[in-house]
Amino acid sequence: MTERHEAFLADFATMSTHGATPRGGVERQAASAADHENRAWFAGWLEAHGFRVEVDAVGNMFGLAELVPGAPWVLTGSHLDSQPLAGRFDGAYGVLTSAHAAARVVERVRAGDLEPRHNVAVVNWFNEEGSRFAPSLMGSAVFTEKASAEKVLAITDHAGTTVADALAAGLAPTDGPLVRADVAQYAEIHIEQGRSLEEQDTTIGLVTGTWAAAKYQVRVVGEQSHTGSTRMSDRRDALYGAALVIVAARELTADAPVDVLHSSVSELYVLPNSPVTVAREVTMNLDLRSGDEAALARAVDTITERIAEVEAASGCRVELTQTHQWGLLAYQPEGVELAGAAAERLGLSHARVLTLAGHDSTNLKDVVPTIMLFVPSHEGISHNEREFTSDADLLAGLDLMEEVVARMVAGDLGTP
Amino acid sequence: MTERHEAFLADFATMSTHGATPRGGVERQAASAADHENRAWFAGWLEAHGFRVEVDAVGNMFGLAELVPGAPWVLTGSHLDSQPLAGRFDGAYGVLTSAHAAARVVERVRAGDLEPRHNVAVVNWFNEEGSRFAPSLMGSAVFTEKASAEKVLAITDHAGTTVADALAAGLAPTDGPLVRADVAQYAEIHIEQGRSLEEQDTTIGLVTGTWAAAKYQVRVVGEQSHTGSTRMSDRRDALYGAALVIVAARELTADAPVDVLHSSVSELYVLPNSPVTVAREVTMNLDLRSGDEAALARAVDTITERIAEVEAASGCRVELTQTHQWGLLAYQPEGVELAGAAAERLGLSHARVLTLAGHDSTNLKDVVPTIMLFVPSHEGISHNEREFTSDADLLAGLDLMEEVVARMVAGDLGTP
Repeated sequence: MTERHEAFLADFATMSTHGATPRGGVERQAASAADHENRAWFAGWLEAHGFRVEVDAVGNMFGLAELVPGAPWVLTGSHLDSQPLAGRFDGAYGVLTSAHAAARVVERVRAGDLEPRHNVAVVNWFNEEGSRFAPSLMGSAVFTEKASAEKVLAITDHAGTTVADALAAGLAPTDGPLVRADVAQYAEIHIEQGRSLEEQDTTIGLVTGTWAAAKYQVRVVGEQSHTGSTRMSDRRDALYGAALVIVAARELTADAPVDVLHSSVSELYVLPNSPVTVAREVTMNLDLRSGDEAALARAVDTITERIAEVEAASGCRVELTQTHQWGLLAYQPEGVELAGAAAERLGLSHARVLTLAGHDSTNLKDVVPTIMLFVPSHEGISHNEREFTSDADLLAGLDLMEEVVARMVAGDLGTP
Repeated sequence: MTERHEAFLADFATMSTHGATPRGGVERQAASAADHENRAWFAGWLEAHGFRVEVDAVGNMFGLAELVPGAPWVLTGSHLDSQPLAGRFDGAYGVLTSAHAAARVVERVRAGDLEPRHNVAVVNWFNEEGSRFAPSLMGSAVFTEKASAEKVLAITDHAGTTVADALAAGLAPTDGPLVRADVAQYAEIHIEQGRSLEEQDTTIGLVTGTWAAAKYQVRVVGEQSHTGSTRMSDRRDALYGAALVIVAARELTADAPVDVLHSSVSELYVLPNSPVTVAREVTMNLDLRSGDEAALARAVDTITERIAEVEAASGCRVELTQTHQWGLLAYQPEGVELAGAAAERLGLSHARVLTLAGHDSTNLKDVVPTIMLFVPSHEGISHNEREFTSDADLLAGLDLMEEVVARMVAGDLGTP
């Protein structure tokens, strides 16, 4: 193991102490105390390694290294926030890998070993997870002008705290953060959060596109009544209606081949949520994803039919409101080519894969050429303290990221 | 309408302004600001009508009228707390009816028209509903020595407030409240919260017993994972497991004749309850009730079998912990006889009924002779702002309660 590898693993271990949970995970929901602690530590790391730290209005953190005054920027990073009781790799691995890779590229430029055509910056996107403040991918959505900073800052968590107030407890915004127009290209590395690389015994995933998705808010409207005395035929039980929808959503996937359709309901609120009162209303999410757009469309049709049956069976009204929709979206092929060539040169096994999860690169690829890379996840476990990637795979990803960022800085993915 | 009838309806209208909701209901969960407001108003009413107000350590309020110094007490009342967004009749009607009836009985004694053998007291039992602080029937359980005051005072709501702290914001305990040993007999009147009286076009229900019940806490233990990327076959989704249990609980009643078996799940908590993370744990209640103990036992067997199927289908572990269990329990027949004779004398139509809901009288009947009376509920709607009982039925219940309390004070249900 090289000294750089040792330094990376040591930094990753330190980072993982921020918001550490008993079973090896982290809990650093966006702008929580643990997230602020980690952000402050990371700002210190960037400054200690010669980067200028800038923070924008919605909490995106940048570490800037100017190599060619006035030139556009290669940006690389991921997110440091986490789900509740999450793994320590999701997002954090990508940010730290980007930081170490960028620092090494800067060293090579300063030593005269690499001719830069771009500047390089590291980014920690704010609130990728969306667990505390919905929606997810918040910071990168504002950066890419898909969402307005003003609206995002007013979003509240379930305790009523706004994004603006939660951010005010940590690093303050600065005057000179990067903006979209400054950035020429983007690269991100992440754990796969799926099993495909591990099953193929492959080290690197070259992400060519994103699964299609259709996400909904489901509102089930029944009527309050007494759980003990109300005749069953008189009940309009919103929790029973919700349960029928959850089962129907799961059954969508029963006949589909493995890895063709995923469906989930994972967040649910009951009113009044009392032991002796039949629920009057349930709100919940519904998340449908597929690598096959036709299969996704069929799933949406089927769940719509099933919901009509649920209404008849439960006496409730079920409202389905689409909150997100995207098709099978490709990353730029020239980026996939560049990353494949870099992996080849390093002797790392690689395969083209789709991402099932969303990433900040999903937003970035819509505005600049973007490279998205995966390293394996043991058993595909993620959003769980048991999330795991081996040191060997982490370091392979670090080596590749350094090579990829070096090539981007040198202009191999196009120049200004 | 008599002057006393008018006074009752006016007082009931005033009481219904405390915690009033937009559609004619009330929300006065136990020891909330609205409940405290109403308790203070009711204490004032009792004092203005010559009762001595006493409050015990767990918030039970008594209005005492001593008629025969040293004699045991006839106690009559119900509860002033409510479910969230509830009707204005549930509990409150019974307390106010008892208060007006007792005041009238005291007048008759003072006027020399009734020879007392007992003293008479009105009671507002604390936290019958159990929606804010579980379990329900709290105050009457402590009074009848089924629960300890010390333990009850330490119970917290979901915000972490204890019963003791919530009570401290209202009426303070006094030195001389009634205790179990002081009480010879109890009477309560309540809206039916079911349809049987309305369907039989009958004004008064003489409650002969309580449906059997089996209540459980259900804990579904799965494992967190990523909703987008985790293969369906790898998921152990606790919310899917919970939905299967809710559907199975409802299906128990599908083949049962009307009014033989009721089942409900109405309170449910999800961890971590996040849009992109499969639930690791769901806790919920399960409430099974029947007027047929064998049918209830069959339902418990069936749900236990179905839960084993749910575990196999969902990959989750499902734990069922019994929280309440009672059989078909009778009220004292001599009380039913006395109330039936009183209704007969007043020319009120009456029928013997079972109560499906629990009441504070359920606790009292286990320690002293207890009379439980119902007036009709429109369409059986309860725990809902649309709960409704006509003025004519309310006043018929008031007339009957006065007659019943008078007979009890006179010693017709037995004497010391």
